[in-house]
Amino acid sequence: MAVYTEVSDEDIIAFLGQYDIGALASFKGIAEGVENSNYLLLTDRGPYILTLYEKRVDPADLPFFLGLMDHLASAGVSCPTPIKGRDGKALRHLCGRPAAIISFLNGVWPRRIWPAQCAALGSALAAFHLAGADFELTRPNALSVENWRPLFEPCRGRADAVFSGIEATIDAELDYLEENWPTDLPAGVIHADLFPDNVFFDGDRLSGVIDFYFACDDFMAYDIATCLNAWCFERNAEFNVTKARNLLSSYGQVRSFSHAEMAALPLLARGSALRFLLTRLYDWLNQIEGAMVKPKDPVEYLQKLRFHQGVAGPGEYGLI
Amino acid sequence: MAVYTEVSDEDIIAFLGQYDIGALASFKGIAEGVENSNYLLLTDRGPYILTLYEKRVDPADLPFFLGLMDHLASAGVSCPTPIKGRDGKALRHLCGRPAAIISFLNGVWPRRIWPAQCAALGSALAAFHLAGADFELTRPNALSVENWRPLFEPCRGRADAVFSGIEATIDAELDYLEENWPTDLPAGVIHADLFPDNVFFDGDRLSGVIDFYFACDDFMAYDIATCLNAWCFERNAEFNVTKARNLLSSYGQVRSFSHAEMAALPLLARGSALRFLLTRLYDWLNQIEGAMVKPKDPVEYLQKLRFHQGVAGPGEYGLI
Repeated sequence: MAVYTEVSDEDIIAFLGQYDIGALASFKGIAEGVENSNYLLLTDRGPYILTLYEKRVDPADLPFFLGLMDHLASAGVSCPTPIKGRDGKALRHLCGRPAAIISFLNGVWPRRIWPAQCAALGSALAAFHLAGADFELTRPNALSVENWRPLFEPCRGRADAVFSGIEATIDAELDYLEENWPTDLPAGVIHADLFPDNVFFDGDRLSGVIDFYFACDDFMAYDIATCLNAWCFERNAEFNVTKARNLLSSYGQVRSFSHAEMAALPLLARGSALRFLLTRLYDWLNQIEGAMVKPKDPVEYLQKLRFHQGVAGPGEYGLI
Repeated sequence: MAVYTEVSDEDIIAFLGQYDIGALASFKGIAEGVENSNYLLLTDRGPYILTLYEKRVDPADLPFFLGLMDHLASAGVSCPTPIKGRDGKALRHLCGRPAAIISFLNGVWPRRIWPAQCAALGSALAAFHLAGADFELTRPNALSVENWRPLFEPCRGRADAVFSGIEATIDAELDYLEENWPTDLPAGVIHADLFPDNVFFDGDRLSGVIDFYFACDDFMAYDIATCLNAWCFERNAEFNVTKARNLLSSYGQVRSFSHAEMAALPLLARGSALRFLLTRLYDWLNQIEGAMVKPKDPVEYLQKLRFHQGVAGPGEYGLI
């Protein structure tokens, strides 16, 4: 939870003057999101989100992210869209940061996941992948298999203090995944960070998907693997096969996966678990004193990695 | 900026079920406020604030705070009011905390203060004091002159590390203020924390006052002194006499002060500066690791204290 860049009343009034979305009624920093500063902006026409893109976002990627939201929304995916000012532009600067006003999406993200929500997630993810197929911009995944070792190197020598034996596990897993990572699965635009706090619901009905700031081109099945990790484990680290079955079968009803994708799922789930283990480990070991964001527990993803290491085949995810 | 208590989607839906204010559309933690957890709640009828009262608020004081909002709003003061559920109650519990839904107040708080805003503040403060006169509940000021020394004692021996010489200054000031603090000035309900982030504006028009969680019974002129400190110094610690004159003269047009109140103003301003110096010093020396709130700089209030120590009379605040 964080607002990194303080926007003054005068700043926001001047900024809003470039848009035709009504007069300012209120604006308040939102205590959600880790990467960027978000404000909830109320005008006399309704709510909007103002996002200031902080250091971790490369400004060169913003046309991809904002263009993707427009593209997906046009294709019928429920997601926020960037609002264009009177000059036709959605992306501008505020308080020294790239900034955009984004349409507001109703709904709340689920703190406790119901199996029915995993089914809704599966359909939405498949629809996302289908809709992304003809998006014209591209962005390589900056957190894929070739980036994991460079991320781990600065953690070496300090990681075992976080959890005993974690270094050896990561070393062996890096060797294995670099050796065995697939190269020819169906690829396209993926969300790459589809955690529960990025999916809004109205009860069991999925009202939309937010936060496209890790979206990139990669294997579509890798996105599914990330969702298996983020949605289908209980808090005690047990895998919930009912949730996984719901996710996979609903996905398959909208976009059928190939046999190769299915067979690769345990490997992709190991890779996705390692990716989040490594970024969390890095953030854990590089905490900034006085930071307003609590780092997430890397050990949670070590447990998920170990689960997938023990999986004999994709059947254990609930689909025959 | 903080949300101390995480409220889940299920919690909020069940909580909202006790009210007739529409169905949940969205709710997001707000990165403002230091004492309590605040959420912006959107229903299909509009925005509301959900507040969970955290440890620093004594639950026994809540009927005073919530009752005061109702009382002031009935008397025409623009402020949020607690929303009553179908059971007629405004105060209930959520996630183990006392909690209330409060009406939403449009406007934004000023980061940079214009002199015209000090004039608007003066009128609003006087109207607040007049409206509070017939409020039936009472609450002593828990941060008045008799509480300052106990607040300072645990800081002793560590304070000079924050700013050299601060201990001697505080010791001498405590002696002086305890000896000279007035006893018979006009008293009533005061806001006691009327900083700019608690006053909302629509341009120069004051749209309302929020955050009554320090309100108490004390000298009305003490509230004015707190506003002199919070609104009439520039960021370089210089006193802006134009702002002070605007504040005092607008106040006086709504509620005339007595000669005794005017004469006491330099002393009350010293007291109010010491009160915020001490609470900030205490928080500075007792930072909790990993806390999500940055403590405020105590030295700012040392500078303000020293300014008022050098004031020869109330004329230096801009009113003859």
